[in-house]
Amino acid sequence: MKIENHRIDVITRGKGTYEITAQVADLIFRSGIREGQVTIMVRHTSASLVIMENVDPEARHDLEEFFERLVPENTPWFTHTYEGSDDMPSHIRMVLTRTSEVIPVMGGRMSLGTWQGIFLFEHRRAPHVRQVVVSIIGEP
Amino acid sequence: MKIENHRIDVITRGKGTYEITAQVADLIFRSGIREGQVTIMVRHTSASLVIMENVDPEARHDLEEFFERLVPENTPWFTHTYEGSDDMPSHIRMVLTRTSEVIPVMGGRMSLGTWQGIFLFEHRRAPHVRQVVVSIIGEP
Amino acid sequence: MKIENHRIDVITRGKGTYEITAQVADLIFRSGIREGQVTIMVRHTSASLVIMENVDPEARHDLEEFFERLVPENTPWFTHTYEGSDDMPSHIRMVLTRTSEVIPVMGGRMSLGTWQGIFLFEHRRAPHVRQVVVSIIGEP
Repeated sequence: MKIENHRIDVITRGKGTYEITAQVADLIFRSGIREGQVTIMVRHTSASLVIMENVDPEARHDLEEFFERLVPENTPWFTHTYEGSDDMPSHIRMVLTRTSEVIPVMGGRMSLGTWQGIFLFEHRRAPHVRQVVVSIIGEP
Repeated sequence: MKIENHRIDVITRGKGTYEITAQVADLIFRSGIREGQVTIMVRHTSASLVIMENVDPEARHDLEEFFERLVPENTPWFTHTYEGSDDMPSHIRMVLTRTSEVIPVMGGRMSLGTWQGIFLFEHRRAPHVRQVVVSIIGEP
Repeated sequence: MKIENHRIDVITRGKGTYEITAQVADLIFRSGIREGQVTIMVRHTSASLVIMENVDPEARHDLEEFFERLVPENTPWFTHTYEGSDDMPSHIRMVLTRTSEVIPVMGGRMSLGTWQGIFLFEHRRAPHVRQVVVSIIGEP
């Protein structure tokens, strides 16, 4: 049994979902681990993680629009506002989605379903470099 | 230290929560692992996982009704609609709940609280066979 | 590779977020594990877990207020009401946040970002003792 921790940097250019499935799969392949688990964890409070339908971009568009409406910018009763109108909604949207996710690895591959992709969900307007930690545990 | 990955098929007959606690507990018992962790992961983008009160069915009824109202079918601005009115709400309800969950195993048993049950949350109307991966890691 | 499971008791005095980052860090330090993962899991259906901005208390205030408004007490169509007006909202707020979270451990420390803290999210008004399980796996 071995464990490997890696870091991925994800460059974001504003709000939206950025797929990282291939980068995670590549780290698993290089680790040589065939039976185990991979943990993906985002090191931020204004970006998060979603596992989402990875084929039709309209599904991701509707998802992003849903969060724009559920947690609107410029909500009048927000008190944490000095970092901009997109800051407090970022924290809430992050809490409503995921910080960490664990996916079993079988036969050297993540046990994702056919339509599942792993996405970093950027909640801020400005470009960022987001850090994702990928932890792989298991047997060769 | 050993690791075992298994798959459970869950037959669903429309929207709702389907308890899988006993099936997960049985796999842990058969693995012989007494100190460790179990990861449960759903391989779908229109079904998800919740850990929920497992005694009063009214609590689950209200939970399901809450999601019906928070993410209504036939939301006029949805663009991803060609798979039916229950499809896009399924993706959003899945993102708002869980794809994976990790529960420590102590003395051969999941460390669930008294009222906690593990449920597959089906978001589609049609019957489905849903795949859940159960990954158990630890020591005998 | 070794695994250790511990239990933390968190005393709550009503609704709100209670930071537990230092207690989890201390258990990791004492375990001697330097490369691995820590799983945090809440054993309740009316309290949950959030990873949140840990500096400005206003951000947590707004987060808590958001959930008060998204899942209001005394929602007229709730049927599970005999445990009080704060009970059913507790279950839904718990489902919308997290029961378990996994954080990689690198060089003996959790790979949390600069602003990330781990909080127990209490959803009930009355004081409680909440049980959190901390499972640490990895190598010295």
